[in-house]
Amino acid sequence: MQRYFLTETVATTAGTQFELTGESVHHWLKVMRAQPGDEAEFVTLNQQVVIGKLASSTATTAMVTVVAVTQPNVELPLEVVIACGVSKGDKTEQIVQRGTELGAAGFVFFDSQYAVAKWAPNKRDRKLTRLAKIAQGAAEQSHRTVIPTVDYQPNLSTLIQQVPHDAGVVAWEESAKQGESSQLVQTLNKMQSGQRLLAIFGPEGGLTAEEVSALNQAGVVSAGLGPRIMRAETAPMYLLSAISFSQELV
Amino acid sequence: MQRYFLTETVATTAGTQFELTGESVHHWLKVMRAQPGDEAEFVTLNQQVVIGKLASSTATTAMVTVVAVTQPNVELPLEVVIACGVSKGDKTEQIVQRGTELGAAGFVFFDSQYAVAKWAPNKRDRKLTRLAKIAQGAAEQSHRTVIPTVDYQPNLSTLIQQVPHDAGVVAWEESAKQGESSQLVQTLNKMQSGQRLLAIFGPEGGLTAEEVSALNQAGVVSAGLGPRIMRAETAPMYLLSAISFSQELV
Repeated sequence: MQRYFLTETVATTAGTQFELTGESVHHWLKVMRAQPGDEAEFVTLNQQVVIGKLASSTATTAMVTVVAVTQPNVELPLEVVIACGVSKGDKTEQIVQRGTELGAAGFVFFDSQYAVAKWAPNKRDRKLTRLAKIAQGAAEQSHRTVIPTVDYQPNLSTLIQQVPHDAGVVAWEESAKQGESSQLVQTLNKMQSGQRLLAIFGPEGGLTAEEVSALNQAGVVSAGLGPRIMRAETAPMYLLSAISFSQELV
Repeated sequence: MQRYFLTETVATTAGTQFELTGESVHHWLKVMRAQPGDEAEFVTLNQQVVIGKLASSTATTAMVTVVAVTQPNVELPLEVVIACGVSKGDKTEQIVQRGTELGAAGFVFFDSQYAVAKWAPNKRDRKLTRLAKIAQGAAEQSHRTVIPTVDYQPNLSTLIQQVPHDAGVVAWEESAKQGESSQLVQTLNKMQSGQRLLAIFGPEGGLTAEEVSALNQAGVVSAGLGPRIMRAETAPMYLLSAISFSQELV
């Protein structure tokens, strides 16, 4: 069933009606060609999922009758914020799309010393708006109840200062090469449901030893993610999958 | 350091020389413009990694002096074969590229009932050759010591019969929806190092209930991969990451 995120509080008692607003109206009526009686899922601001039936519509408005309400548990127990160095091509899009499917709470892209790509300041807002749209689409498709946030930080110091977190890890190739294999497990074991993990990944070129050392001094732990070298856009997927496995399946 | 897979047995005693053959010669000499004294890594047929120095070359041959030999442990403890329904666009390429980075032992693509894409029989060999090349490139980049195999099966019955495995799981959306969360863990707990897991994933359209039921009857267990809906090319990445985490980090 098609899923939309509501942008305003609505009454969710079965049988009541609410007016759908925003871009969802256009998508449901024009793209999906919804007819009266057709159903869709609407995610409320407090993560409930309303199954709603189209009652009536005009060219720009849709009245929805509440059929049923559920509160599914589909979000990762930990809030994982994926912070990545700005990368070339469509890699940032891929990170946001796949990371959303895999349960990330948010994404932050940052400039770093070895980065081969930079976002021009005048294009940054457009990039972030586009990535936020990708996050929303992926959240709808993967049946999430939260749309991940997408932000930018000019460097690793502001990242650490500005992004609230209860624990932090940085995936560093050198840790993996040295066979480091327990820091991620130890960090996860110390964390409790609802806490926030900031997971930092370099751009294609990696992070410098100084950048990693500064992160370590700020309490962020260097963690190996297995013995194989992963590309910049694959490592965040590994981390999110590992967290889901250890917290949702084990 | 650039890495090449050798296609013939070579002597690996430090100081001895071997002749490099195959496409690696062209890549090392022409693309990488190797000069005498330059080093590269060469993976032997028995998964040793030789650091070799270019001794001399002609237009089409390269003599390599063995500098050092190591036997790194970079392969997943389980041999995981990823079997996916044939998908549209570049999804098969993505599955092979990322799955190789994440440690898959092999890939099998199969035709299935809901598949929206089919490989025309006359193009199949070309597709497989291209995917095998992608696997080799990704194996070199991720510093694997094994190049994953890439195969095709016309349907799920031949897949089960032809692909040797000690255990099998099928990722089925309906299992995830029903909150199934323990079968993957139970399957992994029963397996021993060196055993072969066949992990089956539907195409974009998913598998039919009959296909899944036939797999179950053949001993393949339906397993949920967490509460979020993942696209066809994301689910295999989740599985491989989860296996690496549970077997290489925990």
